[in-house]
Amino acid sequence: MLKKNKKINAAILIIGNEILSGRTQDKNVAFICNWLNSKCGISVPEVRIIPDVEKIIIKNIKLLSKKFNYVFTTGGIGPTHDDITAQSIAKAFGLNYEYHKEAYKILEKYYGKKNFNDGRKKMSKLPKNCKLIYNPSSGAPGFITKNVISLPGVPSILNSMIENCKKFLKTGLKVFSTTTNLFTVESNISKDLGDIQKKFIKKVDIGSYPFFRLGKVGVSIVSRSNSKKSLMQVDKDLKKMIQYKKIKKFKL
Amino acid sequence: MLKKNKKINAAILIIGNEILSGRTQDKNVAFICNWLNSKCGISVPEVRIIPDVEKIIIKNIKLLSKKFNYVFTTGGIGPTHDDITAQSIAKAFGLNYEYHKEAYKILEKYYGKKNFNDGRKKMSKLPKNCKLIYNPSSGAPGFITKNVISLPGVPSILNSMIENCKKFLKTGLKVFSTTTNLFTVESNISKDLGDIQKKFIKKVDIGSYPFFRLGKVGVSIVSRSNSKKSLMQVDKDLKKMIQYKKIKKFKL
Repeated sequence: MLKKNKKINAAILIIGNEILSGRTQDKNVAFICNWLNSKCGISVPEVRIIPDVEKIIIKNIKLLSKKFNYVFTTGGIGPTHDDITAQSIAKAFGLNYEYHKEAYKILEKYYGKKNFNDGRKKMSKLPKNCKLIYNPSSGAPGFITKNVISLPGVPSILNSMIENCKKFLKTGLKVFSTTTNLFTVESNISKDLGDIQKKFIKKVDIGSYPFFRLGKVGVSIVSRSNSKKSLMQVDKDLKKMIQYKKIKKFKL
Repeated sequence: MLKKNKKINAAILIIGNEILSGRTQDKNVAFICNWLNSKCGISVPEVRIIPDVEKIIIKNIKLLSKKFNYVFTTGGIGPTHDDITAQSIAKAFGLNYEYHKEAYKILEKYYGKKNFNDGRKKMSKLPKNCKLIYNPSSGAPGFITKNVISLPGVPSILNSMIENCKKFLKTGLKVFSTTTNLFTVESNISKDLGDIQKKFIKKVDIGSYPFFRLGKVGVSIVSRSNSKKSLMQVDKDLKKMIQYKKIKKFKL
């Protein structure tokens, strides 16, 4: 990993008609967001899901790569006609879309010379001078073009590759979080919680999320901050509220 | 439902820090996309996930409500300090943010006069003149402001309300789809599939999705079209390819 910076962020761009049709439940957003936040101290201020349409991909790559430190794309790097992520990113940055020598060698070795057909060769056509992200589970590498990191859409393959992205990323300040689960409803604590948030505004981000589990209704209060000390102060105030409101804690 | 129009689309705007931190796996995108496509003939060309930050919500509401026929928002309509969807939408459209008489009555009845505290009252503060979407499972209604439909973030509650949105929507042409599951890998069929897609360009949208199940590797080919006839023609060409390539079908 490169040297630590204070605030680093990344957008995620999910490319795939199958998500927008509702056919496929996306799992990559939660996985990447969790990994970036907890392992890299990188926040994710925006996610977009767009179709496999070249001009839409180009427009979003141009915009998001300017606005955020990094852009993670998922999907569209396979061998079929609807896999157009690499060529679109090349166009977005005005780079040639051409055979990448190392990727070509990796794939030729993976499939064997005899079986290395045009579809498989296509997966080694990438934006000029991009760097490779090695794929331990299915051969075809991901790639980094400028500040855009392109990964496959299949969650199990993406998950196996994510640690290989780390060496290319500047990491930010670690975010700590605490969760308090209560036997109550949001509207019973909303005023007190609002007051606590106001007191710690800019230091701690407090969220409140209702849940239903095993016939019980409850609220999870999640506090997130770069400062462990501020989190402890919030927890103290939460404890006071819990006592004064006579609320029971809930162990999930 | 209102009269049928040819092409109707909708964007989805997921509002919630808990999705962007990776704490919560979003399930609303797949559910709403599937419902809009299959029940209303409404396509979803774009989804965005953004944090609970007023100026970001306002910017996205302004932009997406101009660009698409409808915008569905999820999240941020509860009683706590981080629930700021209603006030942000009011600001985006220059409308007053005020108690909605009917919503107030619904919530007062739901909680009982004695328990109707400020947090609960807050859920009846909405953009002026919005229409209500009734909530059969937990009282607090959703609402429609211009072409923006606002629903809660909790999936079980959202799911129970979705049919109540239908009467406000113009519906588009129904989209039909067929799926063919094959015992093969994408790179074995990518050339043929690309040729079939070219032949039916603009009529049928063909996607190819690898899967791994019970130790087997396969590819799902999904064809989507407004025309059943064109889908049958694509299926004929797919059958030819399957025979000529000697591929086995896979029953999922």
